[in-house]
Amino acid sequence: MLLAVDFQSDVPIYIQLKQQIIEGIARGRLAEGESLPSVRQLAQDIGINLHTVNKAYSLLKEGGFIIMDRRKGAVINTRQAMAAGDCREKLRDELAPIIAEVFCKGMKEEELIQEIARIYKSFSEDGKHGL
Amino acid sequence: MLLAVDFQSDVPIYIQLKQQIIEGIARGRLAEGESLPSVRQLAQDIGINLHTVNKAYSLLKEGGFIIMDRRKGAVINTRQAMAAGDCREKLRDELAPIIAEVFCKGMKEEELIQEIARIYKSFSEDGKHGL
Repeated sequence: MLLAVDFQSDVPIYIQLKQQIIEGIARGRLAEGESLPSVRQLAQDIGINLHTVNKAYSLLKEGGFIIMDRRKGAVINTRQAMAAGDCREKLRDELAPIIAEVFCKGMKEEELIQEIARIYKSFSEDGKHGL
Repeated sequence: MLLAVDFQSDVPIYIQLKQQIIEGIARGRLAEGESLPSVRQLAQDIGINLHTVNKAYSLLKEGGFIIMDRRKGAVINTRQAMAAGDCREKLRDELAPIIAEVFCKGMKEEELIQEIARIYKSFSEDGKHGL
């Protein structure tokens, strides 16, 4: 899977990496058990600091999206377990500022929900890993 | 309105400030024409760098949430104009990584939409500025 970093973006590079890998899993482009490039390799390929890649991998590990295997390195883990409550609270924290913004811009609830449904469906159509 | 900064958070402080002010507008706690504290004042109150507050105010100005008035400083602007298309593209970019994550965690579309509707309604119930 190709990772593309936007160096002009306001979003920190380690967050961009993390998000793209999670989207890759959601879209079935990264499969269970697949190895990610080594930290060194990925840092070199993109032309960024080792520390930045490390930070992204740490967050992915924390979120249960990868497992660190002594031989295979960072390995995709799609069988994640997480308390639904935790997930929902984090979700609320992340969504509230975004929804506040479109609410201020006058977007109607139905429009917002349509947009959300469209994004969700794009994952379920792409993903073939039976989640 | 009280602004609370979480120094432990992964979210940069200038983003936290921006988000809280937008949420304040969405909830009607910051009204049209109301002045925000000066950059210097807010930086001092929270104990952060002037540059951090400046960055937050710049983003708010860019987004049309405040207007810089020569006498009154940063003034809340709830009458925002933005092309609906722009708004939607930005929204997609911001939502996709969050939805990817909960999709991977196995959250169903209906659950996600319920959560979104709940957040949206919390703004429309709080907000009394007729948006």
